Amino acid sequence: MDELKRRIITEGQGLAGGILKVDSFLNHQLDPELTVSIGREFHKAFQEQGVETASKIVTAEVSGIAPALATGLFYKVPVVFARKKLPITMSGKTYSTKIISPTKKEFSDLIISSQYLNQSDKVILIDDFLSTGKTLQSLINLVREAGATLLGVGCVIEKVFEGGRERLKDLGIPVISLARITVINAGKIELGT
Amino acid sequence: MDELKRRIITEGQGLAGGILKVDSFLNHQLDPELTVSIGREFHKAFQEQGVETASKIVTAEVSGIAPALATGLFYKVPVVFARKKLPITMSGKTYSTKIISPTKKEFSDLIISSQYLNQSDKVILIDDFLSTGKTLQSLINLVREAGATLLGVGCVIEKVFEGGRERLKDLGIPVISLARITVINAGKIELGT
Repeated sequence: MDELKRRIITEGQGLAGGILKVDSFLNHQLDPELTVSIGREFHKAFQEQGVETASKIVTAEVSGIAPALATGLFYKVPVVFARKKLPITMSGKTYSTKIISPTKKEFSDLIISSQYLNQSDKVILIDDFLSTGKTLQSLINLVREAGATLLGVGCVIEKVFEGGRERLKDLGIPVISLARITVINAGKIELGT
Repeated sequence: MDELKRRIITEGQGLAGGILKVDSFLNHQLDPELTVSIGREFHKAFQEQGVETASKIVTAEVSGIAPALATGLFYKVPVVFARKKLPITMSGKTYSTKIISPTKKEFSDLIISSQYLNQSDKVILIDDFLSTGKTLQSLINLVREAGATLLGVGCVIEKVFEGGRERLKDLGIPVISLARITVINAGKIELGT
């Protein structure tokens, strides 16, 4: 996705610890048109991998919501975002797991209500980053706990040097990333093909 | 917005304390097509009130993101979502305020980086609910602190019995809501015109 790669190179900022700051279009400010293009691209890439239909797009709050919503627009299916805190509106059976945020260095929960994810669902997971793959693995566990079928995983940006793809390899499903970062150092970002 | 009202009546659930559960399309699961319609409707309603252009749509994570993104799509401008926790990517000057969540009964921060909101900005605020108006007032304070101009406030659902509109009256700007709820009791929801 050329436009995404251009934005990463021109606006992204490499921080210590392999952290990529892309707050100008993904993690604090959103470009609506770029977001829709991201959804279109995920849809196209998954179609090419044979994932022609799905019943749900699943993501985690906060930064997964925008790319997941855009993907849901092209698949014409609902988007479920796992909550990090249980709101009082969420009653009944829930699936939950613990994650640690790489940019906030703290644990939180990921919670999905059984009302919106069940064994009849065919799911595409979408998130902003594929780094170590741990958050995605947690989301995958929730999907499995609900008895739903996982069709594919899509991430806007993959940090290839953190091994997340390796972690997800045994799933035997398409893992799509729209931009692959091979190097992040202070002041330096390199993209792979 | 007839489709929104229909969804509230058929899927919404009145909970104790005047809480409205609309997790099936707004607070846990999203309907992408309905979300785009919400953005189109905000754009149309603000146009009718003379707010023809804006430079930023501002909202708060989490549930404001989807309707704000959709509104940004029609205004063709970026969307900034205030963060509740400071991510390590957010350096430099920030504007912040404290809010209390009505559905989680806890305090959190709302933080916006000065990189994405400044005195040249003309802002439309979008959020999921207009209840007491306190969260919106906090967002308004951030917009003012940044020196930006506030053009209007849009909320998907207004609980008219919680007095939020009254609280915002003195701003002298359009306050748009797409569905107005006049009664929420356990098992009963009534919509106004």
